[in-house]
Amino acid sequence: MRRVLVTTDRLGAEEMARLSRYAEVVEGWKLAEGGIQRELPEVDAAIVLGWPSYFTRENLAKMGRLRFVQTMSVGVNQIRFQDLPPKVRVCSNAGAYSTAVGEHAWGLLLVAAKWIARTDAAIKREPGAFDQFRAGAKDTLVLKGGTMGIVGYGGIGRAVARFAAAFGMKVIAFSRGKRKERGVKLYRGRSGLELVLRLSDAVLISLPLTKLTEGLMGSKELGLMKKNAVLVNVARGDIVDQRALYEHLKANPSFRYATDVWWYEEGKETLATEFPITGLPNFVGTPHTSGPAGVGTGEPQKAAVLNTVRYLRGQRPKNVMDAAEYLPPSSSA
Amino acid sequence: MRRVLVTTDRLGAEEMARLSRYAEVVEGWKLAEGGIQRELPEVDAAIVLGWPSYFTRENLAKMGRLRFVQTMSVGVNQIRFQDLPPKVRVCSNAGAYSTAVGEHAWGLLLVAAKWIARTDAAIKREPGAFDQFRAGAKDTLVLKGGTMGIVGYGGIGRAVARFAAAFGMKVIAFSRGKRKERGVKLYRGRSGLELVLRLSDAVLISLPLTKLTEGLMGSKELGLMKKNAVLVNVARGDIVDQRALYEHLKANPSFRYATDVWWYEEGKETLATEFPITGLPNFVGTPHTSGPAGVGTGEPQKAAVLNTVRYLRGQRPKNVMDAAEYLPPSSSA
Repeated sequence: MRRVLVTTDRLGAEEMARLSRYAEVVEGWKLAEGGIQRELPEVDAAIVLGWPSYFTRENLAKMGRLRFVQTMSVGVNQIRFQDLPPKVRVCSNAGAYSTAVGEHAWGLLLVAAKWIARTDAAIKREPGAFDQFRAGAKDTLVLKGGTMGIVGYGGIGRAVARFAAAFGMKVIAFSRGKRKERGVKLYRGRSGLELVLRLSDAVLISLPLTKLTEGLMGSKELGLMKKNAVLVNVARGDIVDQRALYEHLKANPSFRYATDVWWYEEGKETLATEFPITGLPNFVGTPHTSGPAGVGTGEPQKAAVLNTVRYLRGQRPKNVMDAAEYLPPSSSA
Repeated sequence: MRRVLVTTDRLGAEEMARLSRYAEVVEGWKLAEGGIQRELPEVDAAIVLGWPSYFTRENLAKMGRLRFVQTMSVGVNQIRFQDLPPKVRVCSNAGAYSTAVGEHAWGLLLVAAKWIARTDAAIKREPGAFDQFRAGAKDTLVLKGGTMGIVGYGGIGRAVARFAAAFGMKVIAFSRGKRKERGVKLYRGRSGLELVLRLSDAVLISLPLTKLTEGLMGSKELGLMKKNAVLVNVARGDIVDQRALYEHLKANPSFRYATDVWWYEEGKETLATEFPITGLPNFVGTPHTSGPAGVGTGEPQKAAVLNTVRYLRGQRPKNVMDAAEYLPPSSSA
């Protein structure tokens, strides 16, 4: 029987039991350093949440049997592909957070479109006349009849497309995929991206952070968008150029940025920003809370285990990543 | 040709032109006091936004020809029914704000369910570690699979029911109506209300403020709801008992109240509250911004004029109100 190292305690009894039917399960989070060292050469596969601190280049070199790594997260930009032998396949957990992250994305869109956080904060901060605060929210965006642009049409993008349709919006998407989607017009390539940005009243960023997407949204791309559009980011902070965004928000007070994801600093997502962007009235942000909410649904755990079981049974696992597309984490850049 | 007094300048050229085909239109907002006094005995109908200051008991007594009043707003609780002769029919603009208010309601629900305004404010107020803020949002509510309860199933309620279905929620509603609704289970009477409150993860208040609904949500009703439920109010503040709500929010930190509407004081909606309720972390509020957003869509103007045209053409107007159900405004109480 093969050995699967589980580095996180978040799987839960049911998923651990399911996994045990197909492999010896090594509960990595219970092991001290010595135990880990003994296990490394023996494990065939691993389920990880984030990147375990002991998955160093040195330790990975000892993992001669390792062929498969399943991440609990969707984004795999923190995986140190450069330290992994090429025969190790890495699978993301794409689609597993679509419910929680899609709901959060729609919340961010509405909170920005209706200036909800801004007026709530104003009411709480200073006493004032009813009509004064009301006037402050006058460029409220009504979604019905507008166009929703989805940049990156995976599981989260599809969830949001469903919400947008229920709100009476036209939905267009930028995607490199070829699949046809009922009611959603897909555009490809640079010109496709530009078209989506130009036509949309609200844009969702829901594509992975890769070599191709880092800094994708710069001053040129932001400049293509409508002056009173809402840009929602639930993917990764670094897809948006921070300086360009800061300047765009300052120059366009009706443009709104609503995000659950933040820029990386030394390989770690952080609330500390290079520019004083959180102080702007047209910025609204949450500290990547959609992820834990997703784990709360149990869907990511189940999806990670089912995909690992696929591998263990000799079936083709889903969401195998192409290492060449991913940047080394910025800490080693 | 009959004369229609329009007391608001919000109708727009197209709607004014439409109205002119069926009546002499008197642009009340352009008239000085003398002009108003000359017109009062002559007008057969009026379109009002709010209750005009010159619709006093004394002036109304001079309006011998008046038979029809169309309001631009949905709620007609500010209409001084007691000063109107019984032969005057008053029509609300029910349904005309469903888009804007429904969208706003869904935004309030998500902002509370995901603690978006609260974490956004925390991030902006104080610097801190990423994980600290993240932990503060741990009882985030995932809507999918939950139950949406709608108290008052009119135009706004139906819009929200559509959103809830797209989010994968079960929808139940408290309604005195008898109509059947696809996919929405309707409950009536006191026991119906209690059932909806008990079963729902999120509850929307979307019924008019009348003698029957003032203070409808008291401590008993709040106590029936789930401890981590979200209560959204886009109807009228006074449907919820303020003291009961304040105490419930303090005692149940995971319970959330998200509102666009505020309590009346001397007949006027105000942000000033009797209890320090806006300071609570599980309270989120906007200053009735959904209304102006609705006017921005043009839908209320169109609906008000179309209903007035129905009256002028001798057809049966929609949304005729039953004066007996409405309280005198609190200023005269």
